[in-house]
Formats: sequence, C-alpha cells, structure tokens
Amino acid sequence: MSEVSSTHTDIGIVTPRYFEFGAADDGLLLDSGQVLSPVTLCYETYGELNSDSSNAILLLHAFSGDAHAAGFHHADDKHPGWWHDMIGPGKPFDTNRYFIICSNVIGGCRGSTGPGSINPQTGTRYGLEFPVITVHDMVKAQVRLIQHLGIPKLLAVAGGSMGGMQALEWASRYSTLVHGAIVLASTSRLSAQGIAFNAVGRNAIMSDPLFYNGDYYDREAPARGLAIARMVGHITYLSDESMRLKFGRRLQDRERMDFSFADQFEVESYLEYKGGTFVDRFDANSYIYLSKAIDYFDLETAHGSLERAFADSSSRFLILSFSSDWLYPPYQSKEIVRALMRRGKDVSYCEIESPYGHDSFLLETERQAPMIEAFLSTISREHR
Amino acid sequence: MSEVSSTHTDIGIVTPRYFEFGAADDGLLLDSGQVLSPVTLCYETYGELNSDSSNAILLLHAFSGDAHAAGFHHADDKHPGWWHDMIGPGKPFDTNRYFIICSNVIGGCRGSTGPGSINPQTGTRYGLEFPVITVHDMVKAQVRLIQHLGIPKLLAVAGGSMGGMQALEWASRYSTLVHGAIVLASTSRLSAQGIAFNAVGRNAIMSDPLFYNGDYYDREAPARGLAIARMVGHITYLSDESMRLKFGRRLQDRERMDFSFADQFEVESYLEYKGGTFVDRFDANSYIYLSKAIDYFDLETAHGSLERAFADSSSRFLILSFSSDWLYPPYQSKEIVRALMRRGKDVSYCEIESPYGHDSFLLETERQAPMIEAFLSTISREHR
Repeated sequence: MSEVSSTHTDIGIVTPRYFEFGAADDGLLLDSGQVLSPVTLCYETYGELNSDSSNAILLLHAFSGDAHAAGFHHADDKHPGWWHDMIGPGKPFDTNRYFIICSNVIGGCRGSTGPGSINPQTGTRYGLEFPVITVHDMVKAQVRLIQHLGIPKLLAVAGGSMGGMQALEWASRYSTLVHGAIVLASTSRLSAQGIAFNAVGRNAIMSDPLFYNGDYYDREAPARGLAIARMVGHITYLSDESMRLKFGRRLQDRERMDFSFADQFEVESYLEYKGGTFVDRFDANSYIYLSKAIDYFDLETAHGSLERAFADSSSRFLILSFSSDWLYPPYQSKEIVRALMRRGKDVSYCEIESPYGHDSFLLETERQAPMIEAFLSTISREHR
Repeated sequence: MSEVSSTHTDIGIVTPRYFEFGAADDGLLLDSGQVLSPVTLCYETYGELNSDSSNAILLLHAFSGDAHAAGFHHADDKHPGWWHDMIGPGKPFDTNRYFIICSNVIGGCRGSTGPGSINPQTGTRYGLEFPVITVHDMVKAQVRLIQHLGIPKLLAVAGGSMGGMQALEWASRYSTLVHGAIVLASTSRLSAQGIAFNAVGRNAIMSDPLFYNGDYYDREAPARGLAIARMVGHITYLSDESMRLKFGRRLQDRERMDFSFADQFEVESYLEYKGGTFVDRFDANSYIYLSKAIDYFDLETAHGSLERAFADSSSRFLILSFSSDWLYPPYQSKEIVRALMRRGKDVSYCEIESPYGHDSFLLETERQAPMIEAFLSTISREHR
C-alpha cells in the first residue's frame, strides 16, 4: 500500500504496560460525578523519551482500537498494531525522533478499566454498573498517565475518529499540556445519522438473549448481537465506492446465481466474517459504553459554542478529513477549522481525496504522511 | 407538504380485491425453475377503466409497501395509502383521467402469496420452503393480473425503489404491454453497500432466537430481529441532512444530559418506535425474501449489458432520482439513462434536489408531480 512498508524488524516485539492509579488517592472524578477507582490504563511506547522530555507524542485510538498501535506482541503474530505503517524508524511518527505512547481508553476492554473489570465495591465485574464515561473522562485518565511518565508537555496528540475527539478535548481543555493536535477523520459532534447507527448496534447487542442486561461474564457472550453491531459499523467505516471496488456484486464461491439462499455475495461473507471475528477481541458492554461516549461528545454544547471550546487553547492544529468519509464527513472538520480560524488559532487543514471512507485515516498512509511529518517537524522545532 | 393535500373525501374508502390464479393451470413458473401455485395477488384500483381500456396505470410498490396506495380502508383510519398525495382527482395520477391499479407483490405479506401462505403440498405455511422469488417473478404475476383485468396494454407503470425495479422489468421484457415507464429513486442493480445493509437486516432477523428457521407462525414472531432490520433500513431511507433537520442532536424528554443510559437522543427513540411498529404489519420471512429479490435484481447480468436489457423496448421512460438518495444514488439512474440514450430510446431524466434521501419519492410530491403529469399527458395522447 505504501512506501513505508511493514516489516517485522522496524518496531519488533513490544510488551504492553499497565499504569494503575486511584487506589491510594481520590480516583478519577468522572463527568457524571461518579468516581472510578482504581483505574488501570494499558499502554505501549515506541522510541525513547529524550533528555528534556520534549519529544513525546500520545496516540489516541478509535472506537475498536487499543494500545497496540505498532509492532508485534509475539514473533508469530500475523498482524502488527493498528497504525504500524505510520509508526517506526523513518515513518511519520518517527521512533528515531519521537517517543510514542498509545494508551487504551477507560471503558474499553483491551487491558484498561472498563465494564469487564472487577467492581471493588462488589467483588464482581461491573457490567452495566460501570459508570457512564465521556471522551473527556478518557482524556483525564491519559493526563494522569502522562504525568506518571514524567512528561511536562506533550509534543503532540494524534488520533482519528474517536481518537480525534480525544485530541480535540486535549487541545480544548489541556492545551498547556500539549503543543500540537492532529485530528483525523473526526468531528466536534456526531451527526444524528451517526447516533442512529450506534443505536442500532446497541439494540442488536441488548436484544441478544445472551446479553442478560450486561451480566454475561460468567456465561456465553452475546456474540450474535455484537457481530451484527460490528457489521453495521463496518459498513459505515467503508464507502459506497470502496465497497464497489472491493466487492462489487461478485458472488461468494460461485460463478452465477442459482436462486437459492446459498447464493451469497462476497460483501455478505466479508461482513459476517468481520462480525464473527470481532467478538473474539471485543466486549459487548464496552461497545455500549464507548459508542455512548461518542454519541455524547459535543464540544458545542459543552462550551456554549465551538469557538468558545477553543478560546483558551494555545495548541496548534492539523486537521485532515477524507472526501468519501460519510460517517465523519469533511463538512464537520471544516466547522472546526472555521471556528479555530475565527479565534485566530494556528490550524492547517486538508481534505484528502480518497475512496476508502472513514477508514481512510488507517489506510491512506502515503497521502497523510507528508502532512503529519511536516507538522511534527515544525512544532518540534518550536517546542525545543 | 404539498398543494395536493390529503383529505378523506378525494379517494375515500377503498376495498382490497384478490386475484387468484394458477390452481387450474400451470401456475407461475419462477426464475428459479420452481412453480408457484396457487397464487393470490391483493390489489386495489382507483378511478375507472375507459371504454377502450387505454387509461390503465399500474403502480408498483417499494419493499415495505402494499396494494393500499391511496384512500382509506376504514372511516376511522388515521393514515391513507402510501402514495395518497399522488393519487386522486386532480392529482398526478388523476383518477378523473386514469384507471389506477396497485398490486401487492408475491413474496410479500400484505394479502398476496408469500412465505406466510399455506403451502398446498404440506398444508402448513411455507416459511423458508417458499421458493426464492425475483423482481421478474413479481412482474410475471402482475402481467397475469393485467390480462385478468382485460387490459391489452398499460398506459404506464410507475414505482419507486423496488417499485422502480419492477417498472424497469416491465419496460425491458414486456414493453409491448406498457407504453411508458416511470422509474423513481431506483437502480438497475443494487450497490455492494445496499446489499450489505440488507444482509445486516437478514442477520438480525435470523439471529433472533424466535426465528426458528422461519417456522415461527404458530409461535411468537421474531419481533426484535425484525425491528432491528427495520431500524437499519430506516436510516438508509433518510439522509444525513434530513436526519439533522428532523432530529439534530436533541435529547428525548430532557433538556440536558445527566450521563446515565436514560439519556436518549430523539433519533434513537424515533428509530425504536418505527422498528417496533413495523413488526405489526410485516412478516420477517417476507423481509428476507423481498430483500433477497432486491439484492439479486441485476439487469446487466441478466441481459449481458444494460443496453441489451432495453434493446427491444418500445416503452418511453421518465426517470427521476433525488440528490440526497445515497441508497439508490443518482449516478445509478444516470447509468440507465445513458444506456437508453445509446440505444436511441425516448427517455426523460431529472435529478431532483431534495434533502429527504431515498424516501424523497414518497415525500417530494410537489417536485415530481409536474414531471409525472406531463409525461402521462404526453403518452396518453400517443396511446389513444
């Protein structure tokens, strides 16, 4: 796909690490007013922190992502981390220059505290007793991690989709702690259409008879509901064009139709496969909590207006959108750009032509790489 | 919404009628090679057939539609037929001039033979023993109805979405029986994205534990699966813009968020309501059969090319698409128009600017009315 090709050697084997906090202090005060304690954050790092701690970049993952952004956990892993093409020696997030951190979000299910964790008050798993969390809550936990790592100010935060929402929260509320924000395929608030798709996913999960109101951890997981939710999600991450290019109307395992229900299109098999494998790595309750956090994210409502959300921000911004992204469409990125410009903020924006829909930020390595490299070089000169 | 407003008096009370065939003869030979017998078609008519039987228009309904296109079944009905604004005295399908017929499709569940009908070979309901049907099969049954009604040649066929697919089949294969074809918000073949959404709906139904492989008629219906399928469908019938205009990010029954799962957006409540009411009037097996018929519809593959599909057609065409329709997007209508023009066929085309997405053909009465009226006037002068 790109010049910065993946090999086993560039990042190599990485080991997840765990930061625990909140047991000995007040814990994490959430936007809901509830307190989460203790809190574990799973994170990974790539590269080395420099002597003045000025080269740290925090990567923020999307809905179904995790801390494993690059490299391999085991020598026989088939797939590297989710942004492997972007991270490593000589890559845009250049581990020869930068210290890269990626942490899993709270509410997730990939090593950090979430609904599948033990509720210390009951000794059993939270399930739906887990407090509602927001994108801001995710960022509050990340702030603690950065302090723990001894980083006074991040060179940059960067993320796509829900990761971009976190980057916007960082730049809006914690801009003294972050020099630059890279926001890819994201929005200051999800559309009604986006909320609707998330609602369908949650309905599919909650309609699964194995859901048991979220209390399924000692039983079989609500796999079919979660798979259907994932199928819906997958369609929204692609585009009409990319699905036409990838699948068209080809049938699976046969040349022509014989008018039985065994006739299946490739796109159906693909979605069923993707839905089916998702349940092995994702928790249905996390699907509910994280999709709710995405729905609730709304910088306008939280601050009165988008301009006011960034009024006090000292961060610089790189905002990228993708032409065929209909879930977080370019017009939403442009609204952010306009609000920043009205406030005289330093913002670079590009709408990248791509057929790959919302997933473009994971796929268009070559197109986005030069802009991210240039942005990081510029701010790292300023930041020294 | 429009000048041609709905009243109880214009069409008034109508009574569905039933045409039965196939018991005494060979039945209906389906594209699958199977034979359906007996066959019942539920239909309604509005207006009067003229003395030379030259004023008949057949309306073709969409996926979840039925024969009840206009008027009311009972004096206390809250809602009229699905295209009431378009049908009646002085309306585009003017019952002072035309004899309007609308028939339910086979495979459906609104009075015509479908998977919920009794299989004469077993004495029990077909369920998934019902043969796979195609859009062409639906049209074959309609041809029998038209012959039964003593109509040598229809003035026009007209329909949107799946109804437009039927209109295309009529004009492609039976153009000696139809003078003009009005094709709204339709396509010669569904996109991979459209197939994917249908696949999600079918998966939701089949994952419902009450589905019992389609054999649920003596039990509780798989209502939750069907409701989820309908929710997905509904999103695809609307548009990003129409959902923003209609719902935005307003919360249901509260002013502001309190970060509990009781926070729900209006769009969620709307979809759940629409999904929930759908199960009262639609059969899950029909959802499966009709969505498969839509997926399988492919004039290119059936005829070798779109041009060849219309090579022998003597029909005139009016094709309308809607700018915000992303399920059956305008570029697909344009492909049909280009194929017709290359063959020198008589085709009028307009892409109507509208925010209402795929549902526009049901809502944009004022915009589409003048074009349909003019088209019908022109062909009815020729047809006399």
